[in-house]
Amino acid sequence: MLYLIGLGLGDHTDITVKGLKIIKQAKRVYLESYTSIYCDDSIDELEKFYERPVIAADREFVEQNSDQILANADIDDIAFLVVGDPLGATTHTDLILRARDKGIEHRIIHNASIINACGCCGLQLYNFGEVISIPLWTDQWRPTSFLDKIEANINHGLHTLCLLDIKVKEQSIEAMMRGRQEYLPPTFMTVNVAARQLLESIEEKSKQQTTKLTADTICVALARIGSDKQKIIKGTLQQMINVDMGPPLHSLIIVGRPLHHIENEMLTLYTMKQQ
Amino acid sequence: MLYLIGLGLGDHTDITVKGLKIIKQAKRVYLESYTSIYCDDSIDELEKFYERPVIAADREFVEQNSDQILANADIDDIAFLVVGDPLGATTHTDLILRARDKGIEHRIIHNASIINACGCCGLQLYNFGEVISIPLWTDQWRPTSFLDKIEANINHGLHTLCLLDIKVKEQSIEAMMRGRQEYLPPTFMTVNVAARQLLESIEEKSKQQTTKLTADTICVALARIGSDKQKIIKGTLQQMINVDMGPPLHSLIIVGRPLHHIENEMLTLYTMKQQ
Repeated sequence: MLYLIGLGLGDHTDITVKGLKIIKQAKRVYLESYTSIYCDDSIDELEKFYERPVIAADREFVEQNSDQILANADIDDIAFLVVGDPLGATTHTDLILRARDKGIEHRIIHNASIINACGCCGLQLYNFGEVISIPLWTDQWRPTSFLDKIEANINHGLHTLCLLDIKVKEQSIEAMMRGRQEYLPPTFMTVNVAARQLLESIEEKSKQQTTKLTADTICVALARIGSDKQKIIKGTLQQMINVDMGPPLHSLIIVGRPLHHIENEMLTLYTMKQQ
Repeated sequence: MLYLIGLGLGDHTDITVKGLKIIKQAKRVYLESYTSIYCDDSIDELEKFYERPVIAADREFVEQNSDQILANADIDDIAFLVVGDPLGATTHTDLILRARDKGIEHRIIHNASIINACGCCGLQLYNFGEVISIPLWTDQWRPTSFLDKIEANINHGLHTLCLLDIKVKEQSIEAMMRGRQEYLPPTFMTVNVAARQLLESIEEKSKQQTTKLTADTICVALARIGSDKQKIIKGTLQQMINVDMGPPLHSLIIVGRPLHHIENEMLTLYTMKQQ
């Protein structure tokens, strides 16, 4: 059996009792290490807690070695660990389908993901529209399609959860051209960078038409949700340029409708406590 | 400290290691019993697993006895357990704000909720729009506002997760009029009833205009997600009238865009295995 096990968001104790039991009994344990990271723990800490060796599996490894991951999984139990919920990221359905092709069953052990945990700031999950991803711009590549999606949500009075880009084990263009296996240091987009990209996108779009999203739109910055060191700050998009949210991971919510007084009270609570 | 602890979706072992530790050390443990239910476990089983007494807290209890729940929570740890994620339902922000008014801190221990776990069917969470709730119609009360929201999602090529009504400890109109504390048996809306209400809403609306949602729209029925006995079935809205999903809880996804071939393959996988 292939078990895809969600680790939740904060630290090693955010795994479920069910998930931990499976890890302790599994033949091999892999940790997916390219769609997210744990806030507070390294792989060594996980190994110590599980009392098991854990094999780090980056994107290259999973794509090129799925046979190795799935070897004997028809007889043995294999645990594939994912920070958050296993199917929050789209990438892991591929592993499930490869397992299916080999006649291997799979089971998902769910956990919290930022998609539901972001409700902790007090905004109602029922009032969220489509989730968007904001990619890190380069000098040559500055897509702005996320702006249209945020504006469609605002048009329907819906908040937008923006997931911010994570770059782990990416090659530089130079290394790629030379065919070298050299990697850039990991990059996690901050709320500040996301806000800057959004403001520049607005500036660009507003040359053609008025935008619903403006520098004054209320936003909520989230950092390290689920961890002891989580931080939540409410402010305008403009203010998000300078807010200090600390270490990764960051996310940003664009508020899409007038805040209900309970939402407002909840946000005040967090802001005051954690600033 | 007031701890709001998510229990996840399947059974008692879906609690996190962090959540379980807090329960074992808390002064009092309450189980919120009106926004959702565990698929596989009764309160007795929870008490046995936690080795602690658990106080069932229905809506009336929470609304009328928040002082009792929060008593001494500035000194003692109080655990308030919620199936799924604590802030999936909107009702619990009120308890947090009452705690704040008494100078009591709170902490949320996240877990899976149907809002992220529904991704297990293979549909990408990034392609979902606003979540909707379908209320159980009565003879006199037949709201159809959910249809407009589904159609807005379809217009944007987004899937819709429909949460189906749960009625726990509701009074009959007769009992209410007589001022009696008598309650109706719990009701959990099935996928069949949801599909019937949707088809009747379409019929009504299509007298005025053509609808995007039709009897042929592809849907995914979900039951007992996260439990050993989960069931996922793909079919048209019309077919959902007769599908047998078994015991609660049920949810329904309205597919809002042509399925990606990986989504389609994933759905085929589930359908074939579990029918």
